[in-house]
Amino acid sequence: MDINKRIDGMTYAIREIVVNAREVEKEGHDVLKLNIGDPNKYDFDTPDFLKQALADAALGGNNYYGDSEGIPAVCEAIANREKKYKNIDIAPEQYLPTSGASEGMNMVFASLVGSGDNVVMPGPSYPLYISLTNFYGGSPREYRTIEEEGWQPDIDDIRSKVNENTKAIVVINPNNPTGALYPEKLLKEITDIAAENDVPIICDEIYDLIVFDKKFVSTASLADDVNFIVIGGLSKVYFAPGWRIGYMGFKGPDDEINKLKEACYKMARGRLSTNTPAQLALKTAMESDHSYLNDYLPKLKERAKFSFKRLNEIEGISVTEAHGAMYMFPKIELESYKGRDKQFVLDLLKEKHVLTVQGSGFGEQYGGDHFRIVFLPPMETLANAFDKLEDFCKSKK
Amino acid sequence: MDINKRIDGMTYAIREIVVNAREVEKEGHDVLKLNIGDPNKYDFDTPDFLKQALADAALGGNNYYGDSEGIPAVCEAIANREKKYKNIDIAPEQYLPTSGASEGMNMVFASLVGSGDNVVMPGPSYPLYISLTNFYGGSPREYRTIEEEGWQPDIDDIRSKVNENTKAIVVINPNNPTGALYPEKLLKEITDIAAENDVPIICDEIYDLIVFDKKFVSTASLADDVNFIVIGGLSKVYFAPGWRIGYMGFKGPDDEINKLKEACYKMARGRLSTNTPAQLALKTAMESDHSYLNDYLPKLKERAKFSFKRLNEIEGISVTEAHGAMYMFPKIELESYKGRDKQFVLDLLKEKHVLTVQGSGFGEQYGGDHFRIVFLPPMETLANAFDKLEDFCKSKK
Repeated sequence: MDINKRIDGMTYAIREIVVNAREVEKEGHDVLKLNIGDPNKYDFDTPDFLKQALADAALGGNNYYGDSEGIPAVCEAIANREKKYKNIDIAPEQYLPTSGASEGMNMVFASLVGSGDNVVMPGPSYPLYISLTNFYGGSPREYRTIEEEGWQPDIDDIRSKVNENTKAIVVINPNNPTGALYPEKLLKEITDIAAENDVPIICDEIYDLIVFDKKFVSTASLADDVNFIVIGGLSKVYFAPGWRIGYMGFKGPDDEINKLKEACYKMARGRLSTNTPAQLALKTAMESDHSYLNDYLPKLKERAKFSFKRLNEIEGISVTEAHGAMYMFPKIELESYKGRDKQFVLDLLKEKHVLTVQGSGFGEQYGGDHFRIVFLPPMETLANAFDKLEDFCKSKK
Repeated sequence: MDINKRIDGMTYAIREIVVNAREVEKEGHDVLKLNIGDPNKYDFDTPDFLKQALADAALGGNNYYGDSEGIPAVCEAIANREKKYKNIDIAPEQYLPTSGASEGMNMVFASLVGSGDNVVMPGPSYPLYISLTNFYGGSPREYRTIEEEGWQPDIDDIRSKVNENTKAIVVINPNNPTGALYPEKLLKEITDIAAENDVPIICDEIYDLIVFDKKFVSTASLADDVNFIVIGGLSKVYFAPGWRIGYMGFKGPDDEINKLKEACYKMARGRLSTNTPAQLALKTAMESDHSYLNDYLPKLKERAKFSFKRLNEIEGISVTEAHGAMYMFPKIELESYKGRDKQFVLDLLKEKHVLTVQGSGFGEQYGGDHFRIVFLPPMETLANAFDKLEDFCKSKK
């Protein structure tokens, strides 16, 4: 049985490293998991009114296949939310609910990327963008984000990476894996590059309302002469990752963007529909006042600040501040692990039972010599994990 | 914006025809929908204990990302169910929960099919098998199923269609779109062909417990020297199509089949997990005694029998009996619509507001000059729809 080589491109370090962690657990050790962006594995929880919305939808008999293109009332709620919080002004029928943001990404990459094509994306990048580009026969082209400047994109590098085979520019803001938040001026410059080259921008804004001390601006709100695909969902801002429900918005200056929407519709019909109760809960989420964030954001901000301070105290580790999302991307400065970030992560797991993700899993070029942590765990867990990390680094000098 | 040509292969008539129906509804007409295999759109409903299981899972806080490879207790419940009802004896870790059976199919085709490859599948076939083969650059090769013999597969034709580029043989039993149920002897002959050619069999058994008067036998239970992928889920037998939860089982004589399982795991990790509450409800479903079928099956059988009788009374239409699933695949014998089954379906929709699906949407070669109906609607709706169909046929002689 020969496996098609496209599968080789489908790697996902965040989940693959879990296989190693299970081995350590089988040996009887508790593993401190700083690897996965699942708030529900820590002391965050789906807001009660959302859980109730899902339960009510199911108990109320909404268990039929939904429309492949999304339930109209749900699309309307998404459009209102994106207008209200992000100033993206497009019609409800420009939104497509998807089985997690991941499914939407897959539809877009399937529609745009083939052999000889490339996708320009941040380095480091969320792994699925790299994987999907490879899976569909294209080449990822990573643009530099500048660690010393808080992982801000290098505009000149973006410009140099876009060529006639570029099918899209990816902007992840707030950023996974670095926790960076991009200012309006810089985002505007990216839209200028997209306009000059007539290349669409994929705006991954799944963390849009998770910001600590600066204002979030949606890239898609900054230009009317560029094609945008905006990605959002319930997994992060609404603390319901296990429901696998997200959405995509298609915005463009003219009808051109609807070619892509129609292609995504074709894929949507092939999989029949997304989960109907989850879609109805998505509607409730979109219509919420988000007051639950008043409790969650200060807690998350405190953990981000603590992680920033504590990680920088550890000899052999340095890190830039996170202004949004749930992640930091520390640099490994130990001579003994130069070029060996995966080994660093495996040794840290094996010796100290602390699970992180190797930076090279987010792209070799800019991710190497780093690792990703989530700062979701309670302070005590974080403190404990960082103590172990410090011990580990001391032992490896 | 150029759309990759793989999207052209992604057609799904069952859902595309809905776009036409919406137009008719916009003109103010009620459309009698005999197009879609969604029991919940008629007088069937998800069993209460399953709705409660989903609600309890969500309210109980199970809203985290599940394991990409499936929650172990869920896999164990699937294994027990497949052993008990279908005599498929493989370990729980050979099962992978998926976001609907559709997602599982996509993973398998992505793993197996590339340019120059072919997949041998029934004619007529469920459209997604044709679409996915095209999408991944392969060629569908349809084997004849013999209408005059109740749409039973032509074994010699299967043998003639398998060649060195065949990546899998698809067996859909009970069958969509014909309602056929295959006898053990015939299934055994298909496994012999698979063994001789060392080709895996994809056993689409999503309708496994929906049979009326004959015994269902799982193809995967009939041989120990063949690689099998068994597909099941909650959409049909458990009347919960909107939850988009299904599963795949990987069975083989040796470790070879696990190459495919590992490839599917890679894709599973890229999409993080399936819906967690739905996965826990899947566990409850797998452990159920299926006593709700005691109400549902006689109702469905009565509708199948009525449809068979009534359709054959209509001049210009003939149909074979359904022994399982939810579908019949009537033949259009009107001279005026020869080679024009899509036009037949569109005219029937426009003139009589009865929605069916053109047979050519299930493969041109064997699906042409037919259409598919579901016999899920209540007797009154079916009677009404068939009266309109009869009027339509009379007017077209």
